[in-house]
Amino acid sequence: MYVIGIGKTKFGILSETIAQLAYKAMYEAISDSPISINDIGAVYVSNFLGSLYQKQLHLNAVISSLLPGLRIPIIGIETACASGASAFYQGLLALSRFENVLVVGVEKMTDATKMKSIENLAMAGDRKLDQKQGLIFPANYALIAQQHMIRYGTTHDDLSAVSFKNHKNANLNPLAHFNYKQVTMDMINRSPIISSPLNLFDCSPISDGASAVVLSRDRKSDRDVEVIGSDLATDYISLAQRKETTSFAATKIAATNAFGQAKLRPKDLDIVEAHDCFTIAELVAMEDLGICKPGESKDWIRQERTTLNGVLPINTDGGLKADGHPIGASGIAQIYEIVTQLRGEAGKRQVDRARIGLAHNVGGIGGTAVIHILRGLSS
Amino acid sequence: MYVIGIGKTKFGILSETIAQLAYKAMYEAISDSPISINDIGAVYVSNFLGSLYQKQLHLNAVISSLLPGLRIPIIGIETACASGASAFYQGLLALSRFENVLVVGVEKMTDATKMKSIENLAMAGDRKLDQKQGLIFPANYALIAQQHMIRYGTTHDDLSAVSFKNHKNANLNPLAHFNYKQVTMDMINRSPIISSPLNLFDCSPISDGASAVVLSRDRKSDRDVEVIGSDLATDYISLAQRKETTSFAATKIAATNAFGQAKLRPKDLDIVEAHDCFTIAELVAMEDLGICKPGESKDWIRQERTTLNGVLPINTDGGLKADGHPIGASGIAQIYEIVTQLRGEAGKRQVDRARIGLAHNVGGIGGTAVIHILRGLSS
Repeated sequence: MYVIGIGKTKFGILSETIAQLAYKAMYEAISDSPISINDIGAVYVSNFLGSLYQKQLHLNAVISSLLPGLRIPIIGIETACASGASAFYQGLLALSRFENVLVVGVEKMTDATKMKSIENLAMAGDRKLDQKQGLIFPANYALIAQQHMIRYGTTHDDLSAVSFKNHKNANLNPLAHFNYKQVTMDMINRSPIISSPLNLFDCSPISDGASAVVLSRDRKSDRDVEVIGSDLATDYISLAQRKETTSFAATKIAATNAFGQAKLRPKDLDIVEAHDCFTIAELVAMEDLGICKPGESKDWIRQERTTLNGVLPINTDGGLKADGHPIGASGIAQIYEIVTQLRGEAGKRQVDRARIGLAHNVGGIGGTAVIHILRGLSS
Repeated sequence: MYVIGIGKTKFGILSETIAQLAYKAMYEAISDSPISINDIGAVYVSNFLGSLYQKQLHLNAVISSLLPGLRIPIIGIETACASGASAFYQGLLALSRFENVLVVGVEKMTDATKMKSIENLAMAGDRKLDQKQGLIFPANYALIAQQHMIRYGTTHDDLSAVSFKNHKNANLNPLAHFNYKQVTMDMINRSPIISSPLNLFDCSPISDGASAVVLSRDRKSDRDVEVIGSDLATDYISLAQRKETTSFAATKIAATNAFGQAKLRPKDLDIVEAHDCFTIAELVAMEDLGICKPGESKDWIRQERTTLNGVLPINTDGGLKADGHPIGASGIAQIYEIVTQLRGEAGKRQVDRARIGLAHNVGGIGGTAVIHILRGLSS
């Protein structure tokens, strides 16, 4: 199974409609691939909040309208913030029936008021156990951060270092939401508190954007990237239902299975896209993925092991934190970045000798986790 | 590929939560099958309006919480009113990876006010071309009915006869939303106009309910029902984008492909579940499925060929019209009815010698159509 084409719009505050964004990403992915639009057998569409932001459901039929005359199977997928990788996972399964599958993710979130955004995003948490208790997402991840600090001695400076690294990477990514040239540790540390200990620079932004990939059963060209591991796992939706607060079982299970399929270990990875909806989530991901032992992510950060020149660069595009987090698109944008790096086409942010990459996409507070491991053919 | 277990709650105005309804249907389907819950490899969840009615997205993780400890892949599917059959279609594709797959659909719609329901349901139509023009679903299907009447001489009595038949069937279905004992043609014809020429008895109701099925790659028992045809097609989301108003291209394409896979023709069918969100939709479906020629559905109705004792009984459970239309559950409830009939377990509404059944599920105004053809093993 191969990724044979990729497309992505700029992420940020955009003026295009949701259909226009999806159109751009889809046609770019098809143009980037060796196949034509008529070779596509099915399409998976990832979107989270279209019903609330655009009053548009049945988005698969909107996408059908953008592919005139095809009339092929097009299906909408939703698993909160993991929708993108879940659609990718579905696309891979569909290669059992179709030679080529298109996967597109799109979200337009910047139209809403701040209060509406908070209410809408909270719907990825349990209505009774999370939403009604005021446990919106910054609060949930703040709880995790507090526990991580108490248990392992992680500090807020460690979180800030994740944010700093990701913003620095985003400066080299022309499609990123943020291209701040002058993000400093001081600026990060002095930003307003959102939910203690998390401040503004610990949180991914509200973004618009779309991304798309073309999948193929067979290899088509030297620019193809092979998918060698794919798994999705789920867990209780709410932290309140779980024993563990500084680790996500769904990530661990999906990672173990995906590494098993790929016959690889974490130390074989060259690059990682980790789900950094909040800075603490990147640290937890490093531990759950087996990149380091529980509690040691802070040490990796302090030793700058995950920067662009480190032993294992993480979130080379800026991650959700700085590339942006248009929810339906994020998981597919991670694949876009991995493919770009493994092809050696990442320009100023290119990682040397990147051959194996892992993408990690999470829904809610770990209720869903999706892992994909990709191997480059050209490098 | 086989359906090896089925479950369904009563449809109607129910007091249970969305999670309780899904739980009931899932555990009934598993109990009805020869396998245990730990044999399930993946779950597909169909729901349309949870974000608007229950403020709950990420429903796949809610379902994960109901299957404690499994932590398997669970994925949410949305294609408007075709969500149920689309999840079933996905479940079949997933049998390429898993031995057994659970598919569950749920919707709870009766909490909302009438105005909110109209607004929410309209989201299956294009925001600009349908919603903003006031082309809500009764209006869209009324346009189709008007065109069908002008073109083919179909009358309102023909539509009423569809409603009468479906209500009569529902009287024999203890799980149906409506069990009116005394529905008469007069009552139907005198019901209030909703969107001319459609009146109240031409429209499916706002319902709560859940349904579930267990799929298996291999045959497990004599009660299994084989899936011999499965296709999903899409089209422009809005009627305004199409040339044809009295026929859905998506239904035609999906039906042609599914019949091709099954190596059968429409005349081989013994029972049909057709998507009768409005009575006119059942007539259009009969023509698009190739059961009769364009314009001849009215003749079939006048000759009572689709009643329970007719040559081809349609909507033996009462259809969306009278069994009810809890959107995420409807497409799976169609499969539930086909399986029940093909097993010979339909009690008072049992069709003699039912061996081949077809389920037809539509999203919006034909933007999505899904066809499944099933064959019984026991009869």
